[in-house]
Amino acid sequence: MIQNHNIRWQHGIVNRAQREQLNGHHGCVVWLTGLSGAGKSTLAHCVEERLVADRCHTYVLDGDNVRHGLCHDLGFTPEDRCENIRRIGEVGKLMTDAGLIVISAFISPFRSDRDGVRKLLGEGDFIEVYCDAPLDVCEGRDVKGLYQKARSGELSEFTGISSPYEAPLNPEVVVHTGRDGLDVCADKVLNYLRDKNKLLSTR
Amino acid sequence: MIQNHNIRWQHGIVNRAQREQLNGHHGCVVWLTGLSGAGKSTLAHCVEERLVADRCHTYVLDGDNVRHGLCHDLGFTPEDRCENIRRIGEVGKLMTDAGLIVISAFISPFRSDRDGVRKLLGEGDFIEVYCDAPLDVCEGRDVKGLYQKARSGELSEFTGISSPYEAPLNPEVVVHTGRDGLDVCADKVLNYLRDKNKLLSTR
Repeated sequence: MIQNHNIRWQHGIVNRAQREQLNGHHGCVVWLTGLSGAGKSTLAHCVEERLVADRCHTYVLDGDNVRHGLCHDLGFTPEDRCENIRRIGEVGKLMTDAGLIVISAFISPFRSDRDGVRKLLGEGDFIEVYCDAPLDVCEGRDVKGLYQKARSGELSEFTGISSPYEAPLNPEVVVHTGRDGLDVCADKVLNYLRDKNKLLSTR
Repeated sequence: MIQNHNIRWQHGIVNRAQREQLNGHHGCVVWLTGLSGAGKSTLAHCVEERLVADRCHTYVLDGDNVRHGLCHDLGFTPEDRCENIRRIGEVGKLMTDAGLIVISAFISPFRSDRDGVRKLLGEGDFIEVYCDAPLDVCEGRDVKGLYQKARSGELSEFTGISSPYEAPLNPEVVVHTGRDGLDVCADKVLNYLRDKNKLLSTR
C-alpha cells in the first residue's frame, strides 16, 4: 500500500460567496422582534412565501421549530431567554453562511440579547425588524390565551405583563403590525431587502 | 380604523417539499463519524464541493463553525459531548427541513448520541458514514498534534487514547479513510445519495 494519503487528503472549501452565487441572492437574518401577538410568525411566513415565489432560499425560525428542539432545555427566566436568543443567533449565522435568508420570529425582549446577535452576525447580515403593535391590541387578539393566563398569574415572567419589553432604538425596519395589513408590512420588509441588494440575482 | 386584522393576519407556511422542489434535491444529514485524524472534515468538504458542482445546496457542520459558536459553552466531558451532538443534530434537522444536504464531521464517539440524532431526524434523513481508519494511521498523521498531547497527558478524555470510540454497528456507508484515496471515499458517499434518490432533480 502506498502511503499517499498525506498528499491526496487535502481539500478546498466551498465558501459563502459560492453558495450565494448558486442561490442567486445573499444570505442574511431578518430578525423580527415584538410582543406576543404582534404577528411576528405570521409576517415571517408571509415574507418567506413571497421570497420563495421569487425563487429565494429561505427558512423561518420560530418557537414552533426551536423551542421544542434546540432549546427545549431552556425556560423563560432572563438567563434562559438570553441563552435561547444566543443559540438562535448562532443558528442564524450558520444558515446565513449557508446562503439562506433566515427570518426569525421571537419576542426577544431584551435589547442586549438582540445587540449580541447583531454583533455576532455583523452589520449588513442582521436586519432588525420591530413589529410595533400596542400592548392592548396584542392582548385583545390573545390568539393562544397567553395574556389571560399572564393576567391571572398562571404564567409568570410574561413579556409586556410581568416582564419588560425593550423596543429597538434603531431598527432597520419598523412595521406597524397592530395597524397595517399583512401585505403592507411584508412589502416594507421586502423593499428593504431589495434596497440593500440582498435579493440581487447573481445567476 | 377597520379592525380587520383577525381576517387578514392569517397565512400559509412554505413547507419542506416546496423548498426541495426549488432546490432540485432532497434535504438530509450525512453524518461522518470516526477518530480524530480519520479525515472527516476533508471528506466533508470534498463531498460538498462535488455536490455544489452539481448545483446542490449544502452545508458542512464541523468543529470550525460549531465548537466556537453554538457550542462554545461545552467541553469534552461525556455530558458535554452528548449535548454537543444533540445540538448539532437539532441544527441538522432544521437545515434538512430547509432543504439542505448537511454534511457533519464530528468524532461523535458514542453510539447512543448518534442513535439519538438518527431518531431525531428519522430514517432516510440520517445517513451515518463510518470513517473507518485504524488508530495507528490516525495517530501517525496527527495533523494538529493532538495525539501527542493526549499521550503526554496534556489532553484528557481524548477519543481513542483516554476515552472510548464506539464504532457504528450498522452504518449506511463505510469508507476506509485510512486506506483509500479521498475521491474513492467521496464517490462512495455520493453513490449512496444517488442510489437513495436524494439527488433526484425535481426541477
